[in-house]
Amino acid sequence: MSPAYVAVVGAGAADARTASVAEEVGRLLASRGAVVVCGGLGGVMEAICRGAKSAGGTTVGILPGLARDEANAWVDVAIPTGLGEARNALVVRAADVLIAIGGEYGTLSEIALALKTRKAVVGIETWELSRRGVPATDIVRAATPSEAVELALRLASTRR
Amino acid sequence: MSPAYVAVVGAGAADARTASVAEEVGRLLASRGAVVVCGGLGGVMEAICRGAKSAGGTTVGILPGLARDEANAWVDVAIPTGLGEARNALVVRAADVLIAIGGEYGTLSEIALALKTRKAVVGIETWELSRRGVPATDIVRAATPSEAVELALRLASTRR
Amino acid sequence: MSPAYVAVVGAGAADARTASVAEEVGRLLASRGAVVVCGGLGGVMEAICRGAKSAGGTTVGILPGLARDEANAWVDVAIPTGLGEARNALVVRAADVLIAIGGEYGTLSEIALALKTRKAVVGIETWELSRRGVPATDIVRAATPSEAVELALRLASTRR
Amino acid sequence: MSPAYVAVVGAGAADARTASVAEEVGRLLASRGAVVVCGGLGGVMEAICRGAKSAGGTTVGILPGLARDEANAWVDVAIPTGLGEARNALVVRAADVLIAIGGEYGTLSEIALALKTRKAVVGIETWELSRRGVPATDIVRAATPSEAVELALRLASTRR
Repeated sequence: MSPAYVAVVGAGAADARTASVAEEVGRLLASRGAVVVCGGLGGVMEAICRGAKSAGGTTVGILPGLARDEANAWVDVAIPTGLGEARNALVVRAADVLIAIGGEYGTLSEIALALKTRKAVVGIETWELSRRGVPATDIVRAATPSEAVELALRLASTRR
Repeated sequence: MSPAYVAVVGAGAADARTASVAEEVGRLLASRGAVVVCGGLGGVMEAICRGAKSAGGTTVGILPGLARDEANAWVDVAIPTGLGEARNALVVRAADVLIAIGGEYGTLSEIALALKTRKAVVGIETWELSRRGVPATDIVRAATPSEAVELALRLASTRR
Repeated sequence: MSPAYVAVVGAGAADARTASVAEEVGRLLASRGAVVVCGGLGGVMEAICRGAKSAGGTTVGILPGLARDEANAWVDVAIPTGLGEARNALVVRAADVLIAIGGEYGTLSEIALALKTRKAVVGIETWELSRRGVPATDIVRAATPSEAVELALRLASTRR
Repeated sequence: MSPAYVAVVGAGAADARTASVAEEVGRLLASRGAVVVCGGLGGVMEAICRGAKSAGGTTVGILPGLARDEANAWVDVAIPTGLGEARNALVVRAADVLIAIGGEYGTLSEIALALKTRKAVVGIETWELSRRGVPATDIVRAATPSEAVELALRLASTRR
């Protein structure tokens, strides 16, 4: 069977704690044989790739620009798209499941596109959503990297 | 000067009250000379176009599929894209400002993509967002169609 | 019935003779009630729009960049996509039939994408194609603007 | 230095001779350390991946649909895009240089998009192009797989 493709989405800048969480998520995903997909840039994207490579994993960066060298140093396969933020839809489509870590509006767009297309999203300290005061509960919350990875891989396997 | 392009985003199904709000937004936008951009399908998209046409406006539908006839009957210029939900990025890019009415996850992706690219979003009874318990306040809230249109056109004019 | 959407494709620069042909194609399309779709920039695209507007037609420009004001002055509905040359696929998808006038490699990509998806292409002094010395005859050749428009509208009506 | 990314483009069906040429191109690219990018489906795409894997290379398939399992069995990293033929622009953008083998109109669109953006194209028995009877000579012709690979890698290195 082909490996699970897990998109890890988060902001292009990350504080030390968020980066540490992301790196551990990357390491655990790689140790479980998942292919890590991300937007290929810095911050959470870089931390996740660094973690995945520390465990010998495969990392794919789907880049907004046209230049391959905008990818962070831990991206194995760098795909320049030239689509700008529209490439977020491709990050989502390339994955079986998403893990969102923190994140700004770009991350929110990826969460929304995933949920719109009924793809599971696991969240660590990411966006909270509600409508007319009623919380939306579609993001599956995880407290730790290991919980997030466990949940994501289980959700990926039921989907494929 | 060219007219303002206002994207009105909302779900593909709408209850009577939401449809009525959307129709009034469309009517007011058209009466003010704005071009109305939307996803071209039913629900809020259809109501907004119907309203805009009632005031002689111009409506543009950026469709997810490849068939022009999936557009609702009040779309003047129907653009089949074949991009699926990835066309949401194009709805945002085609507009100077967004008005979000209610909405599901597709709408949320459009709000997020707009805010990511520093495009103003006016919301009527739409998503509420927070992170780590802190509300995000980037969506400009409007209580009525006329307030939404007023705000959107003012924000569009400062941007252009 | 909805009008025919005809994409007119050609280079971003045009000599006087090519521009004159394009303008006449635009004028004739508009006089026949067709919506004219193009890439929205200068050269052939500008000439076609100028012609269409001279006959009171509707012109749609699907732009490569993010700025609406890169559209030529005769575009009614300007759609900035931010997709660069990838927007060529959208020009093709937005149309029922193509007319290619002269053209460089961007035009060739539009011809190819149209033929790939079995959309008819009428050509005036445009690319000639062959494989292993055998000419490909899928482009329907026209010698004059009126012949091109006649052929295109007939092909569009059989397709829709 | 990062490896060269070489897109090999060709039709989704291939006769035995064309498949044999493609397989040899894939084998040689992999033996030279290049990453092979393609559209991920059958025919020439499958042959190229099979060849690349026979030499331990890395293969990337940028798929038109939403399902990863439409990739051929020799694709290492499968990227479902859901963009249909619009994904051809992404195949071109993901590569430093193209090798076109035979091909139908999809291949022609990739050749055209590459040349439009000044990316080199090496062709083996692929499309011949002319305008007003004058051949266009931008496709660099190769007679054999080894000549094509040699030319492509040289052109990729001057470009990067």
